[in-house]
Amino acid sequence: MINVAIVGASGYTGVELARIIHTHPSATLTAATSRQFDGKPLSDVFPNLKGCTDIICRNHSVEEIIERADLIFCAVPHKTAMALVPSFIAAGKKVIDLSADYRIKDVKTYESWYQEHSSPELVAKAVYGLPELYRNTIKEAQLVANPGCYPTSIILGIIPALAAGLINHSGIIADSKSGTSGAGRSVSQGTLFCEVNDGFKPYKVGGLHRHIPEIEQELSIIAKNEVTITFTPHLLPLSRGILSTIYAPMTREIEEDQIRDLYRSVYEDTCFVRVLDKGEQPATQYVRGSNFCDIALTIDHRSKRLIVTTALDNIVKGASGQAVQNMNIMSGFPEDTGLQNAPFFP
Amino acid sequence: MINVAIVGASGYTGVELARIIHTHPSATLTAATSRQFDGKPLSDVFPNLKGCTDIICRNHSVEEIIERADLIFCAVPHKTAMALVPSFIAAGKKVIDLSADYRIKDVKTYESWYQEHSSPELVAKAVYGLPELYRNTIKEAQLVANPGCYPTSIILGIIPALAAGLINHSGIIADSKSGTSGAGRSVSQGTLFCEVNDGFKPYKVGGLHRHIPEIEQELSIIAKNEVTITFTPHLLPLSRGILSTIYAPMTREIEEDQIRDLYRSVYEDTCFVRVLDKGEQPATQYVRGSNFCDIALTIDHRSKRLIVTTALDNIVKGASGQAVQNMNIMSGFPEDTGLQNAPFFP
Amino acid sequence: MINVAIVGASGYTGVELARIIHTHPSATLTAATSRQFDGKPLSDVFPNLKGCTDIICRNHSVEEIIERADLIFCAVPHKTAMALVPSFIAAGKKVIDLSADYRIKDVKTYESWYQEHSSPELVAKAVYGLPELYRNTIKEAQLVANPGCYPTSIILGIIPALAAGLINHSGIIADSKSGTSGAGRSVSQGTLFCEVNDGFKPYKVGGLHRHIPEIEQELSIIAKNEVTITFTPHLLPLSRGILSTIYAPMTREIEEDQIRDLYRSVYEDTCFVRVLDKGEQPATQYVRGSNFCDIALTIDHRSKRLIVTTALDNIVKGASGQAVQNMNIMSGFPEDTGLQNAPFFP
Amino acid sequence: MINVAIVGASGYTGVELARIIHTHPSATLTAATSRQFDGKPLSDVFPNLKGCTDIICRNHSVEEIIERADLIFCAVPHKTAMALVPSFIAAGKKVIDLSADYRIKDVKTYESWYQEHSSPELVAKAVYGLPELYRNTIKEAQLVANPGCYPTSIILGIIPALAAGLINHSGIIADSKSGTSGAGRSVSQGTLFCEVNDGFKPYKVGGLHRHIPEIEQELSIIAKNEVTITFTPHLLPLSRGILSTIYAPMTREIEEDQIRDLYRSVYEDTCFVRVLDKGEQPATQYVRGSNFCDIALTIDHRSKRLIVTTALDNIVKGASGQAVQNMNIMSGFPEDTGLQNAPFFP
Repeated sequence: MINVAIVGASGYTGVELARIIHTHPSATLTAATSRQFDGKPLSDVFPNLKGCTDIICRNHSVEEIIERADLIFCAVPHKTAMALVPSFIAAGKKVIDLSADYRIKDVKTYESWYQEHSSPELVAKAVYGLPELYRNTIKEAQLVANPGCYPTSIILGIIPALAAGLINHSGIIADSKSGTSGAGRSVSQGTLFCEVNDGFKPYKVGGLHRHIPEIEQELSIIAKNEVTITFTPHLLPLSRGILSTIYAPMTREIEEDQIRDLYRSVYEDTCFVRVLDKGEQPATQYVRGSNFCDIALTIDHRSKRLIVTTALDNIVKGASGQAVQNMNIMSGFPEDTGLQNAPFFP
Repeated sequence: MINVAIVGASGYTGVELARIIHTHPSATLTAATSRQFDGKPLSDVFPNLKGCTDIICRNHSVEEIIERADLIFCAVPHKTAMALVPSFIAAGKKVIDLSADYRIKDVKTYESWYQEHSSPELVAKAVYGLPELYRNTIKEAQLVANPGCYPTSIILGIIPALAAGLINHSGIIADSKSGTSGAGRSVSQGTLFCEVNDGFKPYKVGGLHRHIPEIEQELSIIAKNEVTITFTPHLLPLSRGILSTIYAPMTREIEEDQIRDLYRSVYEDTCFVRVLDKGEQPATQYVRGSNFCDIALTIDHRSKRLIVTTALDNIVKGASGQAVQNMNIMSGFPEDTGLQNAPFFP
Repeated sequence: MINVAIVGASGYTGVELARIIHTHPSATLTAATSRQFDGKPLSDVFPNLKGCTDIICRNHSVEEIIERADLIFCAVPHKTAMALVPSFIAAGKKVIDLSADYRIKDVKTYESWYQEHSSPELVAKAVYGLPELYRNTIKEAQLVANPGCYPTSIILGIIPALAAGLINHSGIIADSKSGTSGAGRSVSQGTLFCEVNDGFKPYKVGGLHRHIPEIEQELSIIAKNEVTITFTPHLLPLSRGILSTIYAPMTREIEEDQIRDLYRSVYEDTCFVRVLDKGEQPATQYVRGSNFCDIALTIDHRSKRLIVTTALDNIVKGASGQAVQNMNIMSGFPEDTGLQNAPFFP
Repeated sequence: MINVAIVGASGYTGVELARIIHTHPSATLTAATSRQFDGKPLSDVFPNLKGCTDIICRNHSVEEIIERADLIFCAVPHKTAMALVPSFIAAGKKVIDLSADYRIKDVKTYESWYQEHSSPELVAKAVYGLPELYRNTIKEAQLVANPGCYPTSIILGIIPALAAGLINHSGIIADSKSGTSGAGRSVSQGTLFCEVNDGFKPYKVGGLHRHIPEIEQELSIIAKNEVTITFTPHLLPLSRGILSTIYAPMTREIEEDQIRDLYRSVYEDTCFVRVLDKGEQPATQYVRGSNFCDIALTIDHRSKRLIVTTALDNIVKGASGQAVQNMNIMSGFPEDTGLQNAPFFP
């Protein structure tokens, strides 16, 4: 049994961490920090948690957090994260950071997309927390940089084909669609119900989204080649879910079934990737509330492209669920502990 | 560990039973019947279940079901249910029937709202499966009539006040709003996405809905008086959730806090009723995917009415979750086994 | 042809006024004020208006507005409204105020629900802008207090029965459900997409909503008796639409058809009330985008109550459409000018 | 003033035609056919139309339709359309066919995607009803093949760049997302509310959708080269709207502003294309209920691709609105007659 803290408990990834930990048999939530809701029960901030946790939000000092927890989930925005993480690491705590601050290995790249990095020395130490790629390193890690939601949906969809050389490392397009929870709980006109409901739109078109360097970093490692992608995010009128439609030029003729077999063998020993059968397509409503990532593989023979479609729940496999999966690996728990529930449908 | 069957696995209550049983530590799904999908994996019928269950839908004979299961969930429509239940009972099986067939104690009343009853002798034997009222009887029951979704949301909201004589047994109005999953998975124009989405409407206005006799039966028992209610159901543009707004004339002046205390003491030893604090109101989004029923109590001093507002997930506490709760009680498992997950929000 | 100004053009009632005026054959939009968006085209603030209007939002002075317009729509919040209206009136302009500031005839009542009134002398002068009740007075009015959305949906539903003495003036309950646009475009956590979507909840339960005095004022006038109602508003996960379910004790036995005939004769000469046939129920999706108010009448024989259900689009008949209807009456245009479009479905 | 018939009035394109014609100053609806609803008022089939039209649905014979109307909208499925159209044409009527039957000029191509063509001789006579391309031919046409919804959203987005040689005619990808009304009003499990709501999924991935030959036909004409596209449709949880994200390899370096200027000059004399400013992106919620098609142009400098994003209302510009636009052109009415209303937002 370990004690865990959620730093930044008042956001959507915070409440989702609390929800998952509530039924986790080997982890206890011992601190939930929030500046805004200091002194308020977390279940007042998120009434769904009533009766599930008695924890009170506190504007804890770094020391208090260190005192209370063995493992710390950092669920605060980038920049805020790197102001806190070094102290946790120095105190010997395990840290899973859900922000972007430790994901980008090349500090200059990080700084060109975000801002100056205040603890570049920790970047090298951090492990990119995609268990399907880095399980063994995560096991030994003290600091895990939990992947972004879009990157998870895209990287998992491409790894096997790219690693096997079936698709070209250049010319990849990811057309991704995300539920609105990805925008967080901070108030903004653009995420008001009436602005989003019954509507659909792209944003940050043309290579502007900050998840791009993260995606390209991981794809480049797999491809052993510098990968540049075209990435277009869109906003869906639903709360949870990301679906990515990925187009990649194929390097050679191959049967769809063979690709499917390849994917299945690559993901054979993992817990949460479901490679769909011929003719099936993923849907966000089939992964809702779960840690699954569904993947379908289709060859467009007319254009000689592989079309990979993936679906996951952006707050679960795209954030808090993956963080708990990392916690499990780091703590020696079975990898799917607390994450075995089936997606709820409808 | 018990073996359970779901008869009628291809509906929304069927898939929800399968979802809950998947992580239930003491129950194994050993049969899932479907005429329409005979031979198909249940996870093809409901792709959310992929990787969670390997069970194949079968058009099982009654004998095969009896052979396979210790406890049988009947998730078929009324009339179909009473054609099957007697055989299961005769074979000594425990049965939880999610239809209306064994809920109404007065067979004539049943027949006036539904159709002729083919096993009236079993009606007396059946226990109305609302654990908050009948836990002890359920423990010993062989046949449990699992309550309707609307009745659960209304009865739980009224029990304490009515039993204590705080509200008049006549003049009660329940204005209820339900998500569309309540209408089931059978195709019909009225439940097409474009007909329901971005809309809201009442139906069966003026005392026409078949849940009325069930509600009145239970309220009359509590009130020790014949209760006639006004009940108006409405269709919400969401999948899961029922919210009932209940208006009842008060019999005497009393503080809101006292009523709240009364409710808390009545529900003290139950697992799933959350009585909200002063100023709080329930919301379907705070019970989503869970077995909770949230209740708020407000006095309208201007009209001397008690307004009880309740929220639950119609497929969980309003159907399949409550059925599993009944299974737990009948099987001697802790009542909340497999049902402890927190509601997911957002 | 008249020139009109929208004061407070950046809210949802503002954009809807602009949308309607765009195709109005006898009105031209000559001023659209906004402090926040001063200098910005209105079609930048609301991209749906691109190509429909070139008007630029300005932080106009009162004088500039007076100079530009013959008739002024005040679409700003209460309190802000009464700071502006007296100057417009003094300058001889016609004013349609969409706030609550001039709706409540009894200034003390207004002040107990809102705040001190700064121009009580104008209250007497203002006409309550419900054309179905006050068409002739509106014709001559200089200042029209445009009704609230909930009040419109409730008052139109009750007028004929109450005036004819068919229902008791005490014991009326209005259970109303509104789309989220009613909460306006100002940012707030409670109206974020993820907080509202896929959910439903009551608010201001127990006689707390500020529309109550307005509803009671008008019902009391009709009943020639002091009416106290129970009113419970709820928030629907959709943008446009109000549906009210109104329960009223009947004073005597009468056929449903007779009540329907009564309603039809009362509303015979009006443009926008549709009294539904036996067995039909209104739905927000059937009035969407139109100025219609649909009304169904059902007797609950079991409880001797009349149940009136009404549906309207809260931004059209509940706000901007009704305001244009009032403008038409005040200006001598046919009452339905610019408002004849059919509701869009789906 | 012309008399028009809607053949197949009980579908979503039928009701939308009726809605638009209701306020069209120069067209009168004189026949609305429906086998299923023979004898029923159209406003019973679609209650939004109550008070807007008295027309009764009839299972009219071809002769009766011909007798009643000058111009006939065929809003029936493909195959059914070509069984009717020849008689209308032979009788000298103008016909706007909303099905696919006369869109594909190459009858063999049609037959390979659909079924045998029963009136191939009329195919040559038919004009593809995209006014932005074929206004002058439509003027003289007796038979107009109204374009598909997806094709309209894609072709309008590509015409100027392709015609100017700015993008390569090979390698074009269209990732399109459509509201559920595109699936029609026929009952099917896949379009039930609970299956679609709060979800998102691709379908017919890999070059399977029947709109492909239509898109490729028109793009090939413009490119003067055989164009093969990759097209992936997706189902959005909303009723109205299509958004297409189109990726095309650029043939040379050019400023984004120059492309924007080009598009503006190409669409300068049209009524319904809005080319957005730098930094703006289209959204389905900004075209809802209108005949507009919004287009944004973005260069992805990292991958040297032009990304064109377009939004339109699939039942208006993607079907019935475009059909009325064609009617206007064929009848010598101003092209935007009856279609000038602004999109409604929110």
